[in-house]
Amino acid sequence: MRRSISEEKVFKDPVHNYIHVQDDLIWRLINTPEFQRLRRIRQLGTSFLTFHGAEHSRFSHSLGVYEITRKIISQFERGSYPDWPKEERLVALCAALLHDLGHGPFSHSIEEAFHMNHEDWTCRILTEDTCVNEVLTSHDPDFPRKVAAVIQKSYDKPIVSNLVTSPLDADRMDYLLRDAYYTGVNYGTIDSDRILRLLRPYKDRVVVKQSGMHAVEDYLMSRYQMYWQVYFHPVTRSSEIILRQIFRRAKELFRDRYPFQFMVEPLPALFEGNPDVNQYLRLDEALIQTAFLQWTYEKDELLRDLCCRFMHRRLYKYVEIDHIDKETIDELRHAFQEAGLNPEYDLEVDFPTDLPYDEFPSGSTASHKQILLLDRFDQLREISEVSDIVRSISGIHRGRSHLYYPEDKLRTVWDILPADVTSLLAR
Amino acid sequence: MRRSISEEKVFKDPVHNYIHVQDDLIWRLINTPEFQRLRRIRQLGTSFLTFHGAEHSRFSHSLGVYEITRKIISQFERGSYPDWPKEERLVALCAALLHDLGHGPFSHSIEEAFHMNHEDWTCRILTEDTCVNEVLTSHDPDFPRKVAAVIQKSYDKPIVSNLVTSPLDADRMDYLLRDAYYTGVNYGTIDSDRILRLLRPYKDRVVVKQSGMHAVEDYLMSRYQMYWQVYFHPVTRSSEIILRQIFRRAKELFRDRYPFQFMVEPLPALFEGNPDVNQYLRLDEALIQTAFLQWTYEKDELLRDLCCRFMHRRLYKYVEIDHIDKETIDELRHAFQEAGLNPEYDLEVDFPTDLPYDEFPSGSTASHKQILLLDRFDQLREISEVSDIVRSISGIHRGRSHLYYPEDKLRTVWDILPADVTSLLAR
Amino acid sequence: MRRSISEEKVFKDPVHNYIHVQDDLIWRLINTPEFQRLRRIRQLGTSFLTFHGAEHSRFSHSLGVYEITRKIISQFERGSYPDWPKEERLVALCAALLHDLGHGPFSHSIEEAFHMNHEDWTCRILTEDTCVNEVLTSHDPDFPRKVAAVIQKSYDKPIVSNLVTSPLDADRMDYLLRDAYYTGVNYGTIDSDRILRLLRPYKDRVVVKQSGMHAVEDYLMSRYQMYWQVYFHPVTRSSEIILRQIFRRAKELFRDRYPFQFMVEPLPALFEGNPDVNQYLRLDEALIQTAFLQWTYEKDELLRDLCCRFMHRRLYKYVEIDHIDKETIDELRHAFQEAGLNPEYDLEVDFPTDLPYDEFPSGSTASHKQILLLDRFDQLREISEVSDIVRSISGIHRGRSHLYYPEDKLRTVWDILPADVTSLLAR
Amino acid sequence: MRRSISEEKVFKDPVHNYIHVQDDLIWRLINTPEFQRLRRIRQLGTSFLTFHGAEHSRFSHSLGVYEITRKIISQFERGSYPDWPKEERLVALCAALLHDLGHGPFSHSIEEAFHMNHEDWTCRILTEDTCVNEVLTSHDPDFPRKVAAVIQKSYDKPIVSNLVTSPLDADRMDYLLRDAYYTGVNYGTIDSDRILRLLRPYKDRVVVKQSGMHAVEDYLMSRYQMYWQVYFHPVTRSSEIILRQIFRRAKELFRDRYPFQFMVEPLPALFEGNPDVNQYLRLDEALIQTAFLQWTYEKDELLRDLCCRFMHRRLYKYVEIDHIDKETIDELRHAFQEAGLNPEYDLEVDFPTDLPYDEFPSGSTASHKQILLLDRFDQLREISEVSDIVRSISGIHRGRSHLYYPEDKLRTVWDILPADVTSLLAR
Repeated sequence: MRRSISEEKVFKDPVHNYIHVQDDLIWRLINTPEFQRLRRIRQLGTSFLTFHGAEHSRFSHSLGVYEITRKIISQFERGSYPDWPKEERLVALCAALLHDLGHGPFSHSIEEAFHMNHEDWTCRILTEDTCVNEVLTSHDPDFPRKVAAVIQKSYDKPIVSNLVTSPLDADRMDYLLRDAYYTGVNYGTIDSDRILRLLRPYKDRVVVKQSGMHAVEDYLMSRYQMYWQVYFHPVTRSSEIILRQIFRRAKELFRDRYPFQFMVEPLPALFEGNPDVNQYLRLDEALIQTAFLQWTYEKDELLRDLCCRFMHRRLYKYVEIDHIDKETIDELRHAFQEAGLNPEYDLEVDFPTDLPYDEFPSGSTASHKQILLLDRFDQLREISEVSDIVRSISGIHRGRSHLYYPEDKLRTVWDILPADVTSLLAR
Repeated sequence: MRRSISEEKVFKDPVHNYIHVQDDLIWRLINTPEFQRLRRIRQLGTSFLTFHGAEHSRFSHSLGVYEITRKIISQFERGSYPDWPKEERLVALCAALLHDLGHGPFSHSIEEAFHMNHEDWTCRILTEDTCVNEVLTSHDPDFPRKVAAVIQKSYDKPIVSNLVTSPLDADRMDYLLRDAYYTGVNYGTIDSDRILRLLRPYKDRVVVKQSGMHAVEDYLMSRYQMYWQVYFHPVTRSSEIILRQIFRRAKELFRDRYPFQFMVEPLPALFEGNPDVNQYLRLDEALIQTAFLQWTYEKDELLRDLCCRFMHRRLYKYVEIDHIDKETIDELRHAFQEAGLNPEYDLEVDFPTDLPYDEFPSGSTASHKQILLLDRFDQLREISEVSDIVRSISGIHRGRSHLYYPEDKLRTVWDILPADVTSLLAR
Repeated sequence: MRRSISEEKVFKDPVHNYIHVQDDLIWRLINTPEFQRLRRIRQLGTSFLTFHGAEHSRFSHSLGVYEITRKIISQFERGSYPDWPKEERLVALCAALLHDLGHGPFSHSIEEAFHMNHEDWTCRILTEDTCVNEVLTSHDPDFPRKVAAVIQKSYDKPIVSNLVTSPLDADRMDYLLRDAYYTGVNYGTIDSDRILRLLRPYKDRVVVKQSGMHAVEDYLMSRYQMYWQVYFHPVTRSSEIILRQIFRRAKELFRDRYPFQFMVEPLPALFEGNPDVNQYLRLDEALIQTAFLQWTYEKDELLRDLCCRFMHRRLYKYVEIDHIDKETIDELRHAFQEAGLNPEYDLEVDFPTDLPYDEFPSGSTASHKQILLLDRFDQLREISEVSDIVRSISGIHRGRSHLYYPEDKLRTVWDILPADVTSLLAR
Repeated sequence: MRRSISEEKVFKDPVHNYIHVQDDLIWRLINTPEFQRLRRIRQLGTSFLTFHGAEHSRFSHSLGVYEITRKIISQFERGSYPDWPKEERLVALCAALLHDLGHGPFSHSIEEAFHMNHEDWTCRILTEDTCVNEVLTSHDPDFPRKVAAVIQKSYDKPIVSNLVTSPLDADRMDYLLRDAYYTGVNYGTIDSDRILRLLRPYKDRVVVKQSGMHAVEDYLMSRYQMYWQVYFHPVTRSSEIILRQIFRRAKELFRDRYPFQFMVEPLPALFEGNPDVNQYLRLDEALIQTAFLQWTYEKDELLRDLCCRFMHRRLYKYVEIDHIDKETIDELRHAFQEAGLNPEYDLEVDFPTDLPYDEFPSGSTASHKQILLLDRFDQLREISEVSDIVRSISGIHRGRSHLYYPEDKLRTVWDILPADVTSLLAR
């Protein structure tokens, strides 16, 4: 049963113009502290240090994902397609709205540094003792579990999971449009209205009508461009490297019982590796930035220097290298060591890889990672069979590596570095 | 002498497409910690609680103001107008870039709560011991003073100040465009290119060619709409009220030596009212938000409640009132007191006023607050003489007031409040 | 009964993104020769000679008006407002789609030159022997009459007429957005989505919720700006003057049995003043432009010169004059005559006036020309009572006149014109 | 020597915002009848029958190409690159502005029907007795020849031709942006500002800095999408087929001395195949549409039917076919003949092919069809060597064919057509 609110509420949104909230349940979820916390987690982590406009939060993005999902379902309902289970509307909307709830501050870096996974946290926030859990439970005691199952792709109606998580889902459509809007780049301008109109429920998944093939090609190319022009921008990677080094150094110091001048809850739990849900929810980017700024006054020189670099944007320089093998890296590290540098912190090698679309994904949920086209004879074809363009970018693993290092430090030892090292870095 | 950088640097910007940096001095100023700090101060303070897209910072805006000023000067140089002092280019660009340097976190609210003024702070940051001061001094020992003088409108060439601060300046043009872009509203779409093309240096000020009259009308109307639709939105005012109440309560507690569980530098200096420049620069919105979130665990019930309201967006409700006099307010406060509420915190009256354009400003710098049109006979006319529209909005003081109050608290005492109070609030 | 088409058809539209056709009747109306003819009538007449982008047709605009009307009705249906007569949906959509069917080539000029009225022609095309009439009749024999009645505001359910024709109707909203888009000016960017959401059926008319007041102000200001910046642009007026002079001259020659080298159906019927519906529908801008280009080879010098001016854009120059009285005009004409010029063709005086909004319209349908706001107590208020801005532009009749004349001809007699004439024109 | 006009003139343009004219020569060229004629030639021919917004003219496009070229040259001048011959600025601007001067009405179809070539006509208009020739000659007697040589790629400074005509030239950039804007599709949104900034003169051609590789990839993909989504849209192809059939039929009738009720200059010269420049310039789309509308009243049934189809948009239906060989076509034609249809007119087979980018063009000007990237060691690399994406679309010849036929006629003989024919067409 749908309990709608007296009058539809709207949020003004630069990407979708208006976001429409018609259900009391959605309205109450948006107003929980756990959802409001997403305002303090940036959608693109450190990208704002490369693209100054990219200061938007996961709060905005989550509303956008909800809105696109709402439009898709509404289209399915208008079309009265039998393969769409109408009674799953609210479960799907909740999963769309809440799928990013477990993201931590500077999500990808913190996950790597502390071996966490945001999807696990999302499910814990849904199912443990939180306001979100309370709101969901008040609607239906089984809702927290159902919503978590959709997000974890273990829901008993696979089409609901497929709607929320697939290579052509509301999440990806919103972030392409939104990240392009806020960074100001032109690459994410996909015709989402056309794609939405051409999605169809088909057995246990969502497919696209064949006439939408070019629109999907364009969407996959936009994704490809956004990855290489924005998400993997070397300046952003440089800031992420420093971020991870700060976390690493702080953890080392904490383990060694270094007397931090600034150390507040829930950082100790984070460093110890076992925050509970309540502690996890106190983590946000305001706290991380505050800690880092405070730490620019710490005694530990390495921590202080790294925090200054991050907060005042004095990032590592980088050099692009076509191929690099393990031996060369070892030589470099050795030469750094010899010259009195610290290769653990003063040298990082980065191999960005992207997989805009993979036609032969392995594993049991494989086919759910494919984009399928539905032709007028009701036959399905995997898109890379039909599209030259998609075939050309399928399975691409880009291999250009980058070396990152603190240029100022290097300059002080430049003359004593071996010639093959300086020639590599001088490129 | 202009020392240009080897190759022009650009920043991708959603509003101006690209921001062009051609001078080494500008590049080095952008890379100071003081300027980078502006990334942690939102352009629109608490407006993001009303318009979720409005998460952009004063860093972005400052780059935008610089870019518009660069374009205006470049147009003046191409036109070779004798009234523009060419040698002042860099001073003007620095003043444009740095004019917002002294803004604190949630600027307008903190200024009101702690009786500070961001313009004073800007000048102190320029002239005291900071990296910005060092960079400016390295260019010319007199530059910090000059740039400060331009910002304070005491520069000996008044046209430079007028370019940087006037009713039609780069600051106002950038914020209209930028705030409209990030909130997603349609009201700020002014034809800035046309206005820029029609600006002319004329004696000691910048005027507009008469043919730009309609574009200026449109600009003033956009300003008017942005004020009433965005800047004075009652939900934003509600969040500002709570913000000021938090500052007020924390100051009271600090004065009374309340044992804060969370209290870090430079908050004590702020509460004592005498931060030095170095302390002031450590203030940012990350710190304020971190303090507020930590304080949601404080023992003081009032502080804790206010911080929860702000951080979890449980704002005060409001009711619009055509006219309200002091006596009615006193009666209300009395009734609140009687009912066991705390009128100091549970009731606020707000009279937003706006002055989109004032044709008869008083005081010595009066004429610098006018917009003057230059006709083809080289005569100047103040715009409201010529434009019906501008005349209609000149000097408007809008008087609709709002009462703000915590609805949940009020509901608990509703039955014991006098009828005239409840009827007023029930509207 | 609504007979919908198997699958919704869409038109890609730059202004509304997609235009959705769900009814077979609408689809068949779009495919009539009479509606397709609107592709050959420009929306903005000769404005393309001022704004080169303004080459869009009444076909595009008519689809846009239909789409906005469809959205309004759909909103009314979702809200289940009792004052909206649901059964009138198709009548309203047809009236919206077809309301401009009777426009002739360069509509306003040709109407003035030949004393015609496009609304009358629209009704004749609806009700006489045409394909549009056939399609409407096949749906319901009474539909042609009904649709015509809605357009003529004599329909027995006034709210249907009010929806289609009012100061805040779909027609005005579409042309503001569309004309701004195609000319490239920034003035027409209204928040139509917001206005649409806030429209309400109320008794026999469509009103706006009070919370939409600022959006309506913005809409009226956009209208005002478009009038003065685009629709009344003096270069456009100049081309319209020449256009009317060509029609006038051709009519004179036709009356005098001048042997035109180019004269095809239905031009004779036009010059004789009595085209029938079939002849009228053969008139389009392709024909007019072809005739004019052919006439640049005619023997009559005046017709030839005027046609060259129009086709090769050698328009009359103009001078702006604050006030001009009848005597001065007579003097000017006399001086022109004396100097050997032809004042009937070589001098035109133009007084553009606009009425963006009129709060006290006279006549019986007066209140239907008002914009009414609906407050939360269900009281109606005429908008200029509440809005300073609207009051300031209500009833404005702008009085700056322009004199238009062929500069090249004038230059040949400049020395023999009286000094007061040359000083007036030299401005 | 550059003779600039007193004050820069601007045209408001939706794509480039403003188009800036700084040279008296350019201004005078725009005001010639030959250039104004381009207002009566649509940029996208019959595409407006598919995308109703695509009503823009070659006049707008030509101004756009001029503007982009102006910006590129201005960037070259600011950079003071030695390989750019500064003295060629005006020649290049004239060639950019005038390169489309020779296009006829519905250009591609009329060229095919009458074996003409618009580039030849452009050169004749430049060099024979026209106003454009007069204006160019008045500037420099050798200018008509020079401008024609640039357009024909025989100019003695090849870089000038390469700037005006190359796979990454101003022409292509303007049409992608402009056609996307007017049709409303999202595919043409290239970052032209970035590409412009990264173009460099290098020896005798214009190359791109390597850092622009992704922007060029995006440009080529946009081109690819525009070809398949817009330029080769089957509905547009259908209208072109009918257009060519009308020309064919009219030519047959003219050859057979059929007594046309409507036949005006310069159509006879066109049908005879030998129009002179003056006659050619009288051809425009107004004339063609007027002729076609008049011919809907001709006695010849075939001509009349075809003209009705084109003018009232009753186009041929189409069916997509993966592969079709000559024999099947012959069989189809035979079956049509047997059934009493006219296979010359009632059946057309269309094989659209596109070559978005070709890395190994043959012939002497081959390398000028390549896009070359300039790396930081000043080495050139052909883009498909470096980009997977570009390689994937290089040399693509798409082979899906379409059959077009008049569905209404076919339906009347459906029952007597062989089963294999009906099954082919029924798909």
